Amino acid sequence: MSWGDRAAPGLLIVLSGPSGVGKDAVMAKLRERGFPLRFGVTATTRPPRPGEVHGKDYYFVSEAEFDRMIAEDELLEWAHVHCHRYGVPRVSVRQHVESGVDVLVRVDVQGAATIRSKVPEAVLVFLAPPSMDSLIRRLTRRGTESAEEQATRIANAYAEMARLPEFDYVVVNPDDGLDEAVEKVMAIVVAERCRVNRRRAVV
Amino acid sequence: MSWGDRAAPGLLIVLSGPSGVGKDAVMAKLRERGFPLRFGVTATTRPPRPGEVHGKDYYFVSEAEFDRMIAEDELLEWAHVHCHRYGVPRVSVRQHVESGVDVLVRVDVQGAATIRSKVPEAVLVFLAPPSMDSLIRRLTRRGTESAEEQATRIANAYAEMARLPEFDYVVVNPDDGLDEAVEKVMAIVVAERCRVNRRRAVV
Repeated sequence: MSWGDRAAPGLLIVLSGPSGVGKDAVMAKLRERGFPLRFGVTATTRPPRPGEVHGKDYYFVSEAEFDRMIAEDELLEWAHVHCHRYGVPRVSVRQHVESGVDVLVRVDVQGAATIRSKVPEAVLVFLAPPSMDSLIRRLTRRGTESAEEQATRIANAYAEMARLPEFDYVVVNPDDGLDEAVEKVMAIVVAERCRVNRRRAVV
Repeated sequence: MSWGDRAAPGLLIVLSGPSGVGKDAVMAKLRERGFPLRFGVTATTRPPRPGEVHGKDYYFVSEAEFDRMIAEDELLEWAHVHCHRYGVPRVSVRQHVESGVDVLVRVDVQGAATIRSKVPEAVLVFLAPPSMDSLIRRLTRRGTESAEEQATRIANAYAEMARLPEFDYVVVNPDDGLDEAVEKVMAIVVAERCRVNRRRAVV
């Protein structure tokens, strides 16, 4: 009988969705709420934004270091996004799931597909805007990118939205409802923990 | 794009588990919390217990009326449990799910299997005791049945527990943690509402 089994591997939850939809805000809120979950830290070659902390928000690495991580198969997935590279170090996930702890990683849509191909048991959550208009407003408002970068992001956003059917869950992030979205993500994790055939990640 | 689709049929959530595990208590708590969900009312030939209200807790019907409901295929499932018959009137579920409202029905383990065979999209939740010892204590403590009835219930409980693998979710109902179990059931409903391939019940 499998109920109450605690020694098994944890869940790998993948939080994804188009750029600008609010993945970082949802992650930050989950952390703030103290929801029992580890967060996989992404490695990136992009420079830190003001306030971002190395090892907490991201591992900020050089192009050469990123090349080495790819060559040595240290990344569970990696992708080019807007001229920079982002990747999930396999070890940062494995150390937790092997000890039965659930891990959430935040990746772009392409990264989610790669993780699914490598870890079929991963739970894929797509964070969606309430509408395309809303997403485009968010992308335009951020103001930390050039107009050209913004245009690229908008084109990408359409392509990313089209991949929603590849995901297990879709959570709408309303314009003024971050808490609502965060609660849905938490509910998904709680529910997945209750699944009779729990999706035990082998990373 | 299916996100935000509101016109589709609702979910059919089936709350089941062995006798004495606390299905009624979980239902009552869900009601008390005002969780947005309709509750399918079960028809039964057993006499009302003190305080039970016809049309709210159960439809209390005669053996003849129950026979008629079976003959006219008005029941989504029905079963003998401890010398009485229980069944879920199809119409009490259909009227809600067709208008996009999620419905929860509470049935015994055999009933859950029947509903799964008729409505494959149903979401099956198994309420489990923390241990067999705990369940047997609960069955013994209730004290509304004869010793013979209790012995039958204990034998049934083992057979019922063995069918856990047929379910989608297992929620442990701790001895002093009804709220914890109720919150997990709510999380499962919220998560199922977020599924990309939502299980739209056709009843």
